Amino acid sequence: MSRALKLVLKPSGLPLFQQIAEAVIEAIRQGRISRGAKLPGTRALATQLDVHRSTVVAAFKELEDQGWLRSSPASGTFVSSATPALKAAKGQRRAETPGFDFIEVPVDEHEVGREPGVLHFSGAPDVRVMPIDLMARAYRRALTRRRASPPEPLGHEPLRTAVASMLRQERGLDVTTEQVMIVPRGTVAVELVMRALVTAGDTVALEELGHRPLREILERQQVRLAPLAIDEQGLRVDALEALTLSQRVRAVWVTPQCQYPTNVVMSDARRRALLELAQKQRLAVVESDYLHDFHYGDENHLPLVTDDHTSQVIYLGSLARVLAPDVQLGYVVAAPAFLRVLAQLRQRADRHDEFATQLAVAELMEDGEYQRALRRSRQVYLRRRDLLAQALRQRLGDVLTFDLPGSGTALWTRVTPRIDVEHWAVRARERKVQFRTALHFAHDRNSRPFIRLGFTQLDEKELVTAVDRLAQALR
Amino acid sequence: MSRALKLVLKPSGLPLFQQIAEAVIEAIRQGRISRGAKLPGTRALATQLDVHRSTVVAAFKELEDQGWLRSSPASGTFVSSATPALKAAKGQRRAETPGFDFIEVPVDEHEVGREPGVLHFSGAPDVRVMPIDLMARAYRRALTRRRASPPEPLGHEPLRTAVASMLRQERGLDVTTEQVMIVPRGTVAVELVMRALVTAGDTVALEELGHRPLREILERQQVRLAPLAIDEQGLRVDALEALTLSQRVRAVWVTPQCQYPTNVVMSDARRRALLELAQKQRLAVVESDYLHDFHYGDENHLPLVTDDHTSQVIYLGSLARVLAPDVQLGYVVAAPAFLRVLAQLRQRADRHDEFATQLAVAELMEDGEYQRALRRSRQVYLRRRDLLAQALRQRLGDVLTFDLPGSGTALWTRVTPRIDVEHWAVRARERKVQFRTALHFAHDRNSRPFIRLGFTQLDEKELVTAVDRLAQALR
Repeated sequence: MSRALKLVLKPSGLPLFQQIAEAVIEAIRQGRISRGAKLPGTRALATQLDVHRSTVVAAFKELEDQGWLRSSPASGTFVSSATPALKAAKGQRRAETPGFDFIEVPVDEHEVGREPGVLHFSGAPDVRVMPIDLMARAYRRALTRRRASPPEPLGHEPLRTAVASMLRQERGLDVTTEQVMIVPRGTVAVELVMRALVTAGDTVALEELGHRPLREILERQQVRLAPLAIDEQGLRVDALEALTLSQRVRAVWVTPQCQYPTNVVMSDARRRALLELAQKQRLAVVESDYLHDFHYGDENHLPLVTDDHTSQVIYLGSLARVLAPDVQLGYVVAAPAFLRVLAQLRQRADRHDEFATQLAVAELMEDGEYQRALRRSRQVYLRRRDLLAQALRQRLGDVLTFDLPGSGTALWTRVTPRIDVEHWAVRARERKVQFRTALHFAHDRNSRPFIRLGFTQLDEKELVTAVDRLAQALR
Repeated sequence: MSRALKLVLKPSGLPLFQQIAEAVIEAIRQGRISRGAKLPGTRALATQLDVHRSTVVAAFKELEDQGWLRSSPASGTFVSSATPALKAAKGQRRAETPGFDFIEVPVDEHEVGREPGVLHFSGAPDVRVMPIDLMARAYRRALTRRRASPPEPLGHEPLRTAVASMLRQERGLDVTTEQVMIVPRGTVAVELVMRALVTAGDTVALEELGHRPLREILERQQVRLAPLAIDEQGLRVDALEALTLSQRVRAVWVTPQCQYPTNVVMSDARRRALLELAQKQRLAVVESDYLHDFHYGDENHLPLVTDDHTSQVIYLGSLARVLAPDVQLGYVVAAPAFLRVLAQLRQRADRHDEFATQLAVAELMEDGEYQRALRRSRQVYLRRRDLLAQALRQRLGDVLTFDLPGSGTALWTRVTPRIDVEHWAVRARERKVQFRTALHFAHDRNSRPFIRLGFTQLDEKELVTAVDRLAQALR
């Protein structure tokens, strides 16, 4: 008898009406209520389950929409005679272990161990500083306005224009809209540029310390990496020149404005030497300047691309994480002929363009809101930088030495040789504080007595606590 | 004299106040107004430029914020003595042609030629049918609610739970939250799964006609593709078996619910044979079911993964383009041990997680809004399918033959041998109508006398016009 139907709700994160719908389906599948049978009234079920009647009504509505139930105003609600997916496999679960072989990937403890309560000396911008609601409203307007629009392989034109204007105004770059391409994320720019420049087996030179995802991307493309030394003037261009004498180098990756992760600014002499060498060897120079927005004083140097009259340089920048953490847009500045190739490559395997995000960011750049948000966050980060420096000098002055960086989001600090930095990092994690050692950034996979302490992610109180834990982890 | 300053505005898509700011910077750079000099009053400049005074005030405010100007209430506005980026390269432009070598990519005419006014027989869902504002509001709530949250490498848990519930309710899959991983786009799932399964030189079998981005991704991973014949029962499992006898096959890609692009539903016998073979050979079966949401009648078959007790199958689905075109989320259903490897691979090169989108979609799935949007769009697409079929029979009945598909977003139509389909496609583009021929989907790069006509992108009136142009292009 269907009137005796007992529903068993499985507690889950789902709304109650969905749990009830699932329980009804389960009962139908198990044959506890048969096709064509009449269901108990919503009032009776509500009493049985101790829920509001409207919740049962919502569950029935859902099941009707899915085709499990049909109802008639006069006679009640019935199980459909043709219920969907009735043949669902019952009982026999799938094996826990896959029935095929796959690669093993070593777990990166440093990346996964972010339990709550752990303070992370990350150099990522702080979501609490971003004008989230501004972005949220702009995004809503953008989505609503979007409608059918022809694809724009180089990105939304008004955004490209706004970026070109920003580069002209704030970075002294002589750039037009045609020379700007928008990409959904910085890593997409890296992938596309490298795919356009190199094939498997080619050599790419890069600074010996750098962005780990860059290494992953290049290794996936089976490129030979040639890590080059950096000193207090930046990349050792003489080392690059020596390399080019022994083999064909297709491209060199540099971060001259603020070397990642060491914050070194490349000297004028090195810049000139690099451009000259590139021109002589037809070498592509990929200049990544994605931290440009985070500078705290007068800028003494314009990007390399400014003095690049032979178009050796491909300039990469970022619009990420100023407005909201989900905005990850990046851009590429290069000769239009090269951008067209990137657009072609892009279109072949992934056509998603984050179009509404582009519309929203364009609007906020045109209104100057983006620039205002940036200036506000710079003020916050400047205070945090100084506070962290002060706290480190007070608590760990005998252990750490560092220069105050004029830009970037982290301090790069030398650790006294009597301390093993890798061991310190492990002890620190036990104390609920996390930082990265030089090893994380080392393309040659060698350890060095340096650690990176980001100052943008934690607020002033958290920074003090985090330094405290750092010190405790040394005892 | 600064009072004689003439500003030259360059017309662009930028707001007027930004154009004025750029003109002032240009004047400073060119030395037409020197450091420390006083600027004309906002009223005088407004008259000169024939704009509202508040626009000039906004431009000055922007320039002050950027550090170009400083103002004092008593004495007026002056050029800063330390202006940013003053050294900007002037005059000498960068070369149009890059100073390095890069690959050439043949332009895919079919992909780029979407000028306005061209009707495209695309099988992509129609933005006009999506509940954009619903998504926009949910996204705004999600962004605002987001704040600092610990990373979730497998995706936002409530969304994983909602997807598992949907798969249990609507597709008869016995799936728990732990077996679901969310990915930002379908192509990300393909890349990760393939990277976990194969290395360069390995063989992957796939249906001879299929998704072109899949081929691009596999070729980039330097995998050997083995396209297998399909017939009216789906993939020829005997051909797969023969292949496995001659070499080690690591994985097979199938679309059993609705073969892409032919709409063939795999027969029960073939399904059984495929699972048996996979089990015997420890073959990974990648079942792509991303069109599942678009079915128009009773489903006769449950996904392959339902009968998969040895965990041979990796099931790929999509949450894309039901709510808004910018929602491209996909999901992977597999054994948790395998999902952990995918999450590790993901995290190494790209940590962007589209978190706010995940929050928003989770909310809309929990509320049943996602499901309602889907049902509404299915009704629209069903009408369009029938209308297109009718129009084709009337206008091109002597040329085209096709079955009405029970799911999917396009008709797969055989073309009479007396017509050259590639030539027809070219003629059609001249008539401002676009479609894809079998060649686009052919992993073996051979032409076949079939074309694919999507019925979801165009509305009923547009479909009639498009069929009309198709017929004209044959004359």
